[in-house]
Amino acid sequence: MSSPPLAVCTLPTGPSQLQSLFEPRSVALIGATERAGSVGRAVMENLLAFPGEVFPINARHDSVLGYQTWASLKALAKPVDLVVIATPAAQVPEIIRDCVACGVRAAIIISAGFKETGAAGASLESSVCEEIQHHGLRLIGPNCLGLMVPHIGLNATFATSMARPGRVAFLSQSGALCTAILDWSFRQCVGFSAFVSVGSMLDVGWGDLIRHFGDDPRTESIVIYMESVGDAPAFMEAARLVAGRKPIVVIKVGRTAAAARAAASHTGAMTGSDEVLDAAFERAGVLRVNSIEELFDMAEVLAKQSLPKGPRLAIVTNAGGPGALATDALVNHGGKLAELVESTLNRLDEQLPAHWSHANPVDVLGDASAMRYAEAFVAVAADVNTDGLLAVLTPQAMTEPLATAQALIEVTKTTGKPVLASWMGGAAVDSAREALNMAGVPTYDYPDEAARAFQFMWQRHERLRWLEKTNQLACAERPVMGAARDMIVSLQRSGRTLLNEIEAKSVLALAGIPVLETHHAGSENEAVTLAARLGYPVVLKLQSPTITHKTDVGGVHLDLKDEGSVRAAWQGILRAVPSAAFDGVTVQRMIRKRGVELICGCSMDQQFGPVLLFGAGGVWVEILQDRVLMLPPLSPELALDRIRQTRIYHALRGTRNQAPANMETICDVLVKLGDLVLAAPEILEIDINPLIATADGVIALDARIVCNRGS
Amino acid sequence: MSSPPLAVCTLPTGPSQLQSLFEPRSVALIGATERAGSVGRAVMENLLAFPGEVFPINARHDSVLGYQTWASLKALAKPVDLVVIATPAAQVPEIIRDCVACGVRAAIIISAGFKETGAAGASLESSVCEEIQHHGLRLIGPNCLGLMVPHIGLNATFATSMARPGRVAFLSQSGALCTAILDWSFRQCVGFSAFVSVGSMLDVGWGDLIRHFGDDPRTESIVIYMESVGDAPAFMEAARLVAGRKPIVVIKVGRTAAAARAAASHTGAMTGSDEVLDAAFERAGVLRVNSIEELFDMAEVLAKQSLPKGPRLAIVTNAGGPGALATDALVNHGGKLAELVESTLNRLDEQLPAHWSHANPVDVLGDASAMRYAEAFVAVAADVNTDGLLAVLTPQAMTEPLATAQALIEVTKTTGKPVLASWMGGAAVDSAREALNMAGVPTYDYPDEAARAFQFMWQRHERLRWLEKTNQLACAERPVMGAARDMIVSLQRSGRTLLNEIEAKSVLALAGIPVLETHHAGSENEAVTLAARLGYPVVLKLQSPTITHKTDVGGVHLDLKDEGSVRAAWQGILRAVPSAAFDGVTVQRMIRKRGVELICGCSMDQQFGPVLLFGAGGVWVEILQDRVLMLPPLSPELALDRIRQTRIYHALRGTRNQAPANMETICDVLVKLGDLVLAAPEILEIDINPLIATADGVIALDARIVCNRGS
Repeated sequence: MSSPPLAVCTLPTGPSQLQSLFEPRSVALIGATERAGSVGRAVMENLLAFPGEVFPINARHDSVLGYQTWASLKALAKPVDLVVIATPAAQVPEIIRDCVACGVRAAIIISAGFKETGAAGASLESSVCEEIQHHGLRLIGPNCLGLMVPHIGLNATFATSMARPGRVAFLSQSGALCTAILDWSFRQCVGFSAFVSVGSMLDVGWGDLIRHFGDDPRTESIVIYMESVGDAPAFMEAARLVAGRKPIVVIKVGRTAAAARAAASHTGAMTGSDEVLDAAFERAGVLRVNSIEELFDMAEVLAKQSLPKGPRLAIVTNAGGPGALATDALVNHGGKLAELVESTLNRLDEQLPAHWSHANPVDVLGDASAMRYAEAFVAVAADVNTDGLLAVLTPQAMTEPLATAQALIEVTKTTGKPVLASWMGGAAVDSAREALNMAGVPTYDYPDEAARAFQFMWQRHERLRWLEKTNQLACAERPVMGAARDMIVSLQRSGRTLLNEIEAKSVLALAGIPVLETHHAGSENEAVTLAARLGYPVVLKLQSPTITHKTDVGGVHLDLKDEGSVRAAWQGILRAVPSAAFDGVTVQRMIRKRGVELICGCSMDQQFGPVLLFGAGGVWVEILQDRVLMLPPLSPELALDRIRQTRIYHALRGTRNQAPANMETICDVLVKLGDLVLAAPEILEIDINPLIATADGVIALDARIVCNRGS
Repeated sequence: MSSPPLAVCTLPTGPSQLQSLFEPRSVALIGATERAGSVGRAVMENLLAFPGEVFPINARHDSVLGYQTWASLKALAKPVDLVVIATPAAQVPEIIRDCVACGVRAAIIISAGFKETGAAGASLESSVCEEIQHHGLRLIGPNCLGLMVPHIGLNATFATSMARPGRVAFLSQSGALCTAILDWSFRQCVGFSAFVSVGSMLDVGWGDLIRHFGDDPRTESIVIYMESVGDAPAFMEAARLVAGRKPIVVIKVGRTAAAARAAASHTGAMTGSDEVLDAAFERAGVLRVNSIEELFDMAEVLAKQSLPKGPRLAIVTNAGGPGALATDALVNHGGKLAELVESTLNRLDEQLPAHWSHANPVDVLGDASAMRYAEAFVAVAADVNTDGLLAVLTPQAMTEPLATAQALIEVTKTTGKPVLASWMGGAAVDSAREALNMAGVPTYDYPDEAARAFQFMWQRHERLRWLEKTNQLACAERPVMGAARDMIVSLQRSGRTLLNEIEAKSVLALAGIPVLETHHAGSENEAVTLAARLGYPVVLKLQSPTITHKTDVGGVHLDLKDEGSVRAAWQGILRAVPSAAFDGVTVQRMIRKRGVELICGCSMDQQFGPVLLFGAGGVWVEILQDRVLMLPPLSPELALDRIRQTRIYHALRGTRNQAPANMETICDVLVKLGDLVLAAPEILEIDINPLIATADGVIALDARIVCNRGS
């Protein structure tokens, strides 16, 4: 790892709790058997290669495959570090009881037949849970393939082959996928420091494993195939601690499965969605990829290459087409092509034939010798405008693939910038590719893959920057928001969960968020008096204990210019809703300011806690779905970082007819919303929609808050 | 090809002009030499395997590599079908003259050193052009690798190996990439009906080649690596003729390179952009992919599998994780997961263990036998809600990969729906994969790739549907737009190129597009009189022969409620601009209708001719960049098809506060804009922005038209 470790508030201490799982000196296999095709036999055969002690346990036979067996753990009467269980599920609770009794510290339950099979299985699982409680026995599984630690020769799985040793810790929630990954790893020469099928994560989960491999000196990167996040706080805490030191790369499936939840607010509908997960990964410094190939590629590249200091890639190539392919892929993934400085262009003009490309990608032409290629590469690598380099080569008549690779390798030793390579073609470039790989230069079959990899490297750089800032924030004191919270708690005590507009705005005002002055009118005359006091034109809105979408029922009357209109509006609202739903109206000034309509909100995600939302507001919320999510606490800088990723940000920067909005005040709303929900965990949902942003500042025109029922 | 050929207006007749290129009986090589490492020797060695006659031409030696040579084509004095030229560029014009003199019908100029090297090379190229004019000699190159026709044993390239025979015609604009592709094709067992490096396309271009391979019985699909589209009308015409019969799959690089052009209108800025190319590909039925791997994969799959009748994919799997991977990829690429009907679910409940997934993806569980898998597959394939099937298998303890594949193959014979497969893992599934491939079921290493392939298949179905409709349109008479064109022509004759708002609206009104009544006022009093006649409130806008962005200079005054405001606005505009830029004002009613602001426009692309634009209008044009491009002529149905792809379409469907817009009238504007620019080729750019759309219809509030200078 080339990146420096980040400052964090707490550091893990002491040896990992999981040492007995991943570095056992002795292993017992319960369910060892000779029966052909059985899981117990497959595990037994794999364990026989383990250089430590192996104890097959079988109550009915004295030996298995010619090896002595013991009737039970108790009968063995020796200390055992790790117990592997491959028996029918029904026997597992008793076996776990034996493990506890014998002082075993770690077990793997390979057996299936637990909660995934229904109620009876779930009850078995509960029994296992009870057995391990308060006993310090750590458990992987149930319903998993097992685990491998290639460096110590441990294969405690029923897979048919042992993983290669390497520097990647692979954790998979799908046992079935493990087999395919293992096979893929042989073809691609990917090696592992550990290969773990996590199963149902009854005990050991992502958090434990990430912490363990974060401290494991043999592990350079942690790669996860995830179906569910499980214990989210544990995952987040561990990832935040480790991600600064080692890349954590995740493929999480189910991106599209989460159905939108019916909720009282736009923000509430986000809860449990895949977008929340993305925000959490960003917060924790975790890199998310979309395919198995990217998963391992990034694990290798991120562990071996220094990260780029900026997003600008320079491409050197001996053919135009592959350079264009790489450029397209780079830009499509949000990357930037470096603009070479004048002096570099001049230097290349001197070095290269007259019809070189005269820009990045630098096409050194099809007849380039190794020397011409390398000279150009040196010039480009030295350019202050380049943050990383991609070298592309196709074998043509005069091409020297190996000599070019060797020259390139020399240059990479001193550039201090990441270098990726794509030597295209087959046998003609094989030895060159090998040389590049040996020298730590990642090679790709196609230059577009390389360009995408560079973009992921830059993304990791950005994640680390974000992680550093969020870790600083996590250490800092946050405002207590005393007055706002007191109001929430007092409303909650009086049995309220859905706050009305006036209450919601009061809470926000107490939190320091600018809101439009709004008053309640219990009678037509009171509405008229208030309108006169606030100044025409005004807006009348239904106040209702039950109806949340006021516009739908004709409960909103805008731009009322005189007393007559106010009286008509009162009557209109009164007639439009049942009397039980009518609790008078609110009166506020009509705001005519031209400004950008935004939505800012917050909701409580069951897994990740409070999540903030920012996006295009008003009627555009549903049409554009232009929004970003963030986890609090935020700093203004972090908020702005995310706001920049929306389309509505372009509107905030000002248009032909409109001055730029005051960004500071927008960021401040998000920071304060974050502080509010952290201080007042009673809040389930907040929607400020619209928040009007102008050059002068922001103001919340409407707001909604939902609280929980209290305990 | 399973799809029926489409009706087209004209069909190609007679034998292909390019027969001598791709089916020569005799080949002469000019520049044949023994010199090691030379292009001439490499081509010579490749040609020696050709079963037809081969004549090496060399003026200085009697023999080359032991074969008799001739001093020149004239000295040979025999008819030659194809001449391959591998001499220095300077000699090429004279050689071409000899070819013409000897009645040669086809030549390949491998030599480089033409226009890509500068002015001298370009002049050589012109000489070659002159030589072949009016002589019927067809030419590939210059600056290319050559071509291969594996079926007839012709390798007229300097590549080191011969392509495998197959059913894909591969056309590449990058010679350097050819080598890499060839190598890739050996590893992937991809075969070719022809393998053509097109070089600079001095003569034979995409149009010729697409037509030729469209008629070639050995070619099932045409695959193109494209850097520039060259003769766009020829490409479009050929693609439209052929795409209905054979898939044309293109990877076009330079997607991100085209810089936005400075233009007087939003629509004009699109010209020459990659988005125009996408619109043209869509119009011509061409499928565009993003990577080399997709290029050939789709060529194979589209040629072999029947197309889905709808977008709904069902996934059968023996493991949850890979099913989730496939689902994510499908939905991310815009695909749809089939919703199984009740009776299918009931049938699966009977067939499968209780804890199957109870939904699509159908997880038949890890211990599924071949029979259980196949029974479930039959049930899912029979479901009326499924349009295609993806079978996923990972090798687990009880899995029967080959038997499952064989059972699956039986089912595919009768489903009538496309079936893709992903048998994951290595040696354990190799024989099963081979069996699937042999039976015409495409297999993928990972299920996400398969899901993406299905989405491309559906896209091809949609392209064919679109192609059928556009071909019908191309056959139909279009309105002549006589009055509108007369006005354009008369304005053009008077030296006008930038029409003012009133003129532009008049042209649009003559074309049948609803515009807001707008009048010119040359004096303050005239403005007041007009305002009174139209009715307050009104809008005053600068009329200027030079200033196009009126708002920027303070030339637009909205919502003027009385005479005083109108007079103040007149004075304000008068003061704001230099007198030369002031040509009075326009007066129109202020439209207060709540509606959706759209932009509709048209511009003349240098390559593809008129291109229509539809999108979010007003200030949102630049902020959202939410737009689609289309080539005219359009039908209302085709227009709606594309409108549906924008985000603003969601606003047009109606929101909480607003009734749905009248879609017919919006489509009508696009159809008429298309007819207008086809009828009046003098028009360079039209921008209608905003076009206000409401439930009642549409109205153009502002418009701009730019014409060319005339001849």
